Amino acid sequence: MTASVLILNGPNLNLLGTREPDIYGAETLADIEAACRAHAEGLELDIDFRQSNTEGELVGWIQAARSNAAAVIINAGAYTHTSVAILDALLAVDLMVMEVHLSNIYQRDEFRHHSYISKAATGVICGLGSQGYLLALDAVAQRLDRNNTKA
Amino acid sequence: MTASVLILNGPNLNLLGTREPDIYGAETLADIEAACRAHAEGLELDIDFRQSNTEGELVGWIQAARSNAAAVIINAGAYTHTSVAILDALLAVDLMVMEVHLSNIYQRDEFRHHSYISKAATGVICGLGSQGYLLALDAVAQRLDRNNTKA
Amino acid sequence: MTASVLILNGPNLNLLGTREPDIYGAETLADIEAACRAHAEGLELDIDFRQSNTEGELVGWIQAARSNAAAVIINAGAYTHTSVAILDALLAVDLMVMEVHLSNIYQRDEFRHHSYISKAATGVICGLGSQGYLLALDAVAQRLDRNNTKA
Amino acid sequence: MTASVLILNGPNLNLLGTREPDIYGAETLADIEAACRAHAEGLELDIDFRQSNTEGELVGWIQAARSNAAAVIINAGAYTHTSVAILDALLAVDLMVMEVHLSNIYQRDEFRHHSYISKAATGVICGLGSQGYLLALDAVAQRLDRNNTKA
Amino acid sequence: MTASVLILNGPNLNLLGTREPDIYGAETLADIEAACRAHAEGLELDIDFRQSNTEGELVGWIQAARSNAAAVIINAGAYTHTSVAILDALLAVDLMVMEVHLSNIYQRDEFRHHSYISKAATGVICGLGSQGYLLALDAVAQRLDRNNTKA
Amino acid sequence: MTASVLILNGPNLNLLGTREPDIYGAETLADIEAACRAHAEGLELDIDFRQSNTEGELVGWIQAARSNAAAVIINAGAYTHTSVAILDALLAVDLMVMEVHLSNIYQRDEFRHHSYISKAATGVICGLGSQGYLLALDAVAQRLDRNNTKA
Amino acid sequence: MTASVLILNGPNLNLLGTREPDIYGAETLADIEAACRAHAEGLELDIDFRQSNTEGELVGWIQAARSNAAAVIINAGAYTHTSVAILDALLAVDLMVMEVHLSNIYQRDEFRHHSYISKAATGVICGLGSQGYLLALDAVAQRLDRNNTKA
Amino acid sequence: MTASVLILNGPNLNLLGTREPDIYGAETLADIEAACRAHAEGLELDIDFRQSNTEGELVGWIQAARSNAAAVIINAGAYTHTSVAILDALLAVDLMVMEVHLSNIYQRDEFRHHSYISKAATGVICGLGSQGYLLALDAVAQRLDRNNTKA
Amino acid sequence: MTASVLILNGPNLNLLGTREPDIYGAETLADIEAACRAHAEGLELDIDFRQSNTEGELVGWIQAARSNAAAVIINAGAYTHTSVAILDALLAVDLMVMEVHLSNIYQRDEFRHHSYISKAATGVICGLGSQGYLLALDAVAQRLDRNNTKA
Amino acid sequence: MTASVLILNGPNLNLLGTREPDIYGAETLADIEAACRAHAEGLELDIDFRQSNTEGELVGWIQAARSNAAAVIINAGAYTHTSVAILDALLAVDLMVMEVHLSNIYQRDEFRHHSYISKAATGVICGLGSQGYLLALDAVAQRLDRNNTKA
Amino acid sequence: MTASVLILNGPNLNLLGTREPDIYGAETLADIEAACRAHAEGLELDIDFRQSNTEGELVGWIQAARSNAAAVIINAGAYTHTSVAILDALLAVDLMVMEVHLSNIYQRDEFRHHSYISKAATGVICGLGSQGYLLALDAVAQRLDRNNTKA
Amino acid sequence: MTASVLILNGPNLNLLGTREPDIYGAETLADIEAACRAHAEGLELDIDFRQSNTEGELVGWIQAARSNAAAVIINAGAYTHTSVAILDALLAVDLMVMEVHLSNIYQRDEFRHHSYISKAATGVICGLGSQGYLLALDAVAQRLDRNNTKA
Repeated sequence: MTASVLILNGPNLNLLGTREPDIYGAETLADIEAACRAHAEGLELDIDFRQSNTEGELVGWIQAARSNAAAVIINAGAYTHTSVAILDALLAVDLMVMEVHLSNIYQRDEFRHHSYISKAATGVICGLGSQGYLLALDAVAQRLDRNNTKA
Repeated sequence: MTASVLILNGPNLNLLGTREPDIYGAETLADIEAACRAHAEGLELDIDFRQSNTEGELVGWIQAARSNAAAVIINAGAYTHTSVAILDALLAVDLMVMEVHLSNIYQRDEFRHHSYISKAATGVICGLGSQGYLLALDAVAQRLDRNNTKA
Repeated sequence: MTASVLILNGPNLNLLGTREPDIYGAETLADIEAACRAHAEGLELDIDFRQSNTEGELVGWIQAARSNAAAVIINAGAYTHTSVAILDALLAVDLMVMEVHLSNIYQRDEFRHHSYISKAATGVICGLGSQGYLLALDAVAQRLDRNNTKA
Repeated sequence: MTASVLILNGPNLNLLGTREPDIYGAETLADIEAACRAHAEGLELDIDFRQSNTEGELVGWIQAARSNAAAVIINAGAYTHTSVAILDALLAVDLMVMEVHLSNIYQRDEFRHHSYISKAATGVICGLGSQGYLLALDAVAQRLDRNNTKA
Repeated sequence: MTASVLILNGPNLNLLGTREPDIYGAETLADIEAACRAHAEGLELDIDFRQSNTEGELVGWIQAARSNAAAVIINAGAYTHTSVAILDALLAVDLMVMEVHLSNIYQRDEFRHHSYISKAATGVICGLGSQGYLLALDAVAQRLDRNNTKA
Repeated sequence: MTASVLILNGPNLNLLGTREPDIYGAETLADIEAACRAHAEGLELDIDFRQSNTEGELVGWIQAARSNAAAVIINAGAYTHTSVAILDALLAVDLMVMEVHLSNIYQRDEFRHHSYISKAATGVICGLGSQGYLLALDAVAQRLDRNNTKA
Repeated sequence: MTASVLILNGPNLNLLGTREPDIYGAETLADIEAACRAHAEGLELDIDFRQSNTEGELVGWIQAARSNAAAVIINAGAYTHTSVAILDALLAVDLMVMEVHLSNIYQRDEFRHHSYISKAATGVICGLGSQGYLLALDAVAQRLDRNNTKA
Repeated sequence: MTASVLILNGPNLNLLGTREPDIYGAETLADIEAACRAHAEGLELDIDFRQSNTEGELVGWIQAARSNAAAVIINAGAYTHTSVAILDALLAVDLMVMEVHLSNIYQRDEFRHHSYISKAATGVICGLGSQGYLLALDAVAQRLDRNNTKA
Repeated sequence: MTASVLILNGPNLNLLGTREPDIYGAETLADIEAACRAHAEGLELDIDFRQSNTEGELVGWIQAARSNAAAVIINAGAYTHTSVAILDALLAVDLMVMEVHLSNIYQRDEFRHHSYISKAATGVICGLGSQGYLLALDAVAQRLDRNNTKA
Repeated sequence: MTASVLILNGPNLNLLGTREPDIYGAETLADIEAACRAHAEGLELDIDFRQSNTEGELVGWIQAARSNAAAVIINAGAYTHTSVAILDALLAVDLMVMEVHLSNIYQRDEFRHHSYISKAATGVICGLGSQGYLLALDAVAQRLDRNNTKA
Repeated sequence: MTASVLILNGPNLNLLGTREPDIYGAETLADIEAACRAHAEGLELDIDFRQSNTEGELVGWIQAARSNAAAVIINAGAYTHTSVAILDALLAVDLMVMEVHLSNIYQRDEFRHHSYISKAATGVICGLGSQGYLLALDAVAQRLDRNNTKA
Repeated sequence: MTASVLILNGPNLNLLGTREPDIYGAETLADIEAACRAHAEGLELDIDFRQSNTEGELVGWIQAARSNAAAVIINAGAYTHTSVAILDALLAVDLMVMEVHLSNIYQRDEFRHHSYISKAATGVICGLGSQGYLLALDAVAQRLDRNNTKA
């Protein structure tokens, strides 16, 4: 059976391609979704790709993933630095979590250096643009594979 | 006339019973609601028991309580530590406020030691699991009683 | 053509006139909207006046302003101090931003002294009550005028 | 067999009823002892109610409780914020510990926000005046009951 | 009778128009004085416009304003961040105080984010260049008007 | 009727004259008591001069002063920097409090710069050796006198 | 020969009696000077009593005291908290220094708790109003006396 | 022509497979080198795989990479948190830099959360074990490819 | 003449052997006393071995040691981290001081890393259980020996 | 044409040779001026050597230097650590700035380690006594020379 | 079989006897080695005594100890305060570790109070000069003995 | 006899002329050595000019300087901010130390503002490029000269 991966995007990521292009590049979120979909297919993964500006909606989607996803890839945007609620949701569902950031957050404002998400993440990938999502999918695939092989 | 108490539950509390049981126990939020309802009856209090993952929705419910509740019992979950908006709503409606936490937040992560809610709360009860809600109802009842007796 | 200005109000500002009147005065938000509307007319500006308790909704309105407003006047209320998401939205849309606070936030709790909004604002006006909105409109009008004159 | 509860009161609590009544109310410590005694009877608990101004004496009483009490309810007063010795005693005797404060310490001086006692307490109840002691007794009774039922 | 407003300018503001024009613009202090004078006339206010590089001289002028001015508009320049003496003078004379900054100090060096002046100011206006002075005059006029109307 | 003044000395002050003479001088505590007694006589004050190494005993003496003293002069020694219990006792008895230190604590270790006692003291005198006690008696006498004159 | 004492008063102390009377009392600086002069006469001391709002002028007066004064009594007002220049002047002239504050600075704003002057002062007296100046004169007289007796 | 990638490993990484296996896993550094070599071949990259315990040696290898490598993949181990010298070397050679950590450093000791390397890195990958190296190679390959395509 | 060593034990050390055995081991304080006594005999030292839960009593014993002991070995327990009074007593008596801790305090809670005792101690030995006392006796013996040899 | 260099000395430097000679040496400020004058002559530079205790006067002299000096050598004394006004003046005039300190400020009080002047200085020379001024003149001469050669 | 102990000395310890003798005493490192060798013989321990100024070399020696030593006694000198690499090596080899310092580091510069080594050490001995090494050998011997006895 | 000066250069200074030329200029380290050699000749000083990337090697060279150099000029590069070992070596050899930095470290990253070297340096020269080395040689020559003249 094909495993499913929830790919979550936080606030303002819907503006990608138009917003501060020197930091985030010219790709749109739709471009990234398409790239993820193509890449996931090669890895025999299903993806559910979503974006929300609302903390509570992101929390809800993570909760729902418990019953229908094998992993969460999350670029929480600004909520990375402020949301204990999203951290708690990730801790609660107890899925594999991959944290992705398009830019290298450690080279930006001081308040962007701290991530609540990292406390719940297996892996963190940042600074690699949209490729970060694809590498995160690779990491998910490899880990699911390893677990299956063990079983 | 029976007084009404709004009992608010913040993000991820809908997962109770399934989430990190070593910290939060095996009771579900429905169990807690039932226990509160039974206990409130004995105290001749009406309760309005709600949960939301969205900060803004919690703010709205608190605002609405001004006209139809005598007190708010609130377990704000993760928003305890990050939400000035909920603090401001509680300050604005000027009702009796009881802050409840299932676990002892002072024995968990450093960032969970600070509560914005406490700045607006009459009383704080933490670490006593679902019983904390019932004790908070007792405290509300006793205070309403005392006020009535005075009048 | 008349320029349009989005005027945003954050959480609990819908309670104005009823909430902590010693800090915020007796005017309601509707009073402020009316005053803004009258003042804007004199400046030949259109206004779109909104309030929300939800961070994500405010983010969405700011994003939408990109295509139909010339400036944003924002009193983000409690989100002033906690919302990186609103900051990022303001940075992304790259419009003229005027930050307004009814009270002088530098004379209140320590945690209200810091504003994320200020990092994206052209101007900050605080402590002048509802007049702050009108002065912000003046500032917007003067700047739009100056830009037009240059062109 | 009736279980015994040690109720400890720290420095200056002997002045209750005379000291800063706007913060601590008009009840005396004897009033609180009487209320505890009456309430404990209803719960079939014995209580040993004490007060001391001396850190070392409080430490000694906690140590002695190991052999003759089932739980400690402690309002450590000023030592809440400064005494590692009392914390260590509570950790050492390994009894159920309920921390009580008459006032909401989170709304007073900054240096009163931190409690060493909380690191050893099962539950914390603050801001509810003398009722806090009674609720703490309820919490002790319920927990003892639950343990007995299990056994 | 026409009310009088003292407009104070702190150190280095005499260099305006020549100093770091990308931050402060090309207007000279004389230009600002002229604009203020014209604007004040329309508001039926007298103005006394001064600049000094010396903390003690600014303190003296504020003290003198007690007997002959209705309000102080102050751009204290560098002393904003370092002068408790000017703060104390403003607190002592107990006049209406409007704090003005040409640039948005919250987007500059960390040590420029803190203002002692704000602790004594009714309103703060920053980032709006010389227009900030005119808006401050508007705010003064409106408040004086309101007070007169009440009387 | 002669007013009574409690003069309290904290831990290790019984060693005066033998301990770190370069900081505290060669006078013994008995010398200071004698000087105080002689000086108090001239001011028509009775004194009760005591020393203890135990925080709780100092707390008890302060509590007792409520009914038989008009003022407390306190050199709390090391407890100056660590005792919230003594601070609370001083706040509770609500007497005139004069804080005295033999040495200038602001020129010693960093941790000796902070005094809890100062939060309850009318006046603070430090660095003047045993004369500080006499000046404190002068200050008490003048204040009692002023109050009597008013009455 | 009569010894001379320089009594220095910092910024805004010329407003005494008119400024924030709940903190500083109703006495004017002239009243304090008269009281000092009368008291000094009894101690056979000459006094030179001055006030300035300018840091540099205070520095100059301290420097000049080297050749014609035996001690400096200084109430540096706001410069207490900000002036390293006055500290350096006091260190340089190497005279006896008594620091005086009318109010108890440890009970006011956090930024008023730190004093640069204390690093150069023999004694510190605060919270005792104008009597603090007189006690400082007593302290100077006693110390000069002691030194003379030794010689 | 095949591009070359320098893969650097810092102190104690030579112990991999034997050291704290619950954190770092059972793979040896030789295993990782072999996996990298195989993976690099598929990407048509040459690799130069090295380990040193000495900060200065790592600095030297980075310097040398300027003339013979297209990118550096670096797991600086403990030097991640303490070495400004390695940071400066990476800044100086101005190559593409990928930072890799086997474990998620944000879930370990506080002092391991900060990385000097991140200030010079294009991308950061952590928590993915040895697969992190392979993903870093993918990221290097994709970027080199993109640059070639542009030229 | 045999030299005498005061061995002091702070709060809760009387519980040794029963308290948190994974941290402190199974030996009782009586066991340690016996071991010290045997070891001291071999070194021709007399020991006076005491324990108290009260800070003031410990202070008193240290003061008394001036006239009848050559050295103090102190395990101040919780007072290590909070007692300036004990530090001052140790500074005052000016004896050789050896600080001992059973556990390695640098591997426990952050607030246990700081020791006031260390500021007065010649040597510090921690983490070696009861053997730490014996090694401290060795250190005392060697130093007394060296001093005697010199004389 | 000979270039002119403004050499500024801040508060208390007029006391040189008499003040804390173990820190500042026995040379007077006149000695330093003479040495500078002789050295400047050899470098074909004119110097304008000044001292003031008043921050505002130093600001004024820096401002005036814009039209008649090629560089400023400044030993701001105590204002080094507290004056944003002098920093702003130096930034405004945009001349070459050499910061000089007689002593090594990094080996003195913590509050003397920070310099506002350094943010505007090309070079900083400290700890070399009066020779520091001469080396600063050398640095100015070399740079002016280099610029002339380029032109 | 005789157990072997690696005794490591960090940077600048080769200068012992010549360097800051008031802090470190007159013994040379060779003297200490000789004393250790003699003492170890009595304990039936072999020692391997080394010194290096290079962090990486110390790391290497610790790694090598895994296969041929039963314990490490380490005086890491300056690296105590800065080396995470040495800490990681000690954690990795999982041997008994004794940390030794000749002087009492808690009485020296603030930055010398923190030790990374302590996080991996069983015991810490400081302030006892070269005797500290011998006591550390005693501690090692006793522990090895105890383990053998158990087996 | 000609005095000898050790000139030490820390990590990455071998890259000078190629590395971040906007910060460090285009001169190579060989250029600087040549300039130093020429300048030293004029001052009748011998120089020993070295560079290393390894902390331990720099420590060793400083140690060796004790027997064959009269002064050390050191540009420790990145180790300026992190090396207690180099500080200790400089303190141990007790030679004249001149600290040099090419750039003004106080205008770069926050973590580059702190220097351990400064605690051991007589003088600090920064921001003057390679001329800083020559001025440091001047300072050494003048001091050696002065010492000789005294002898």
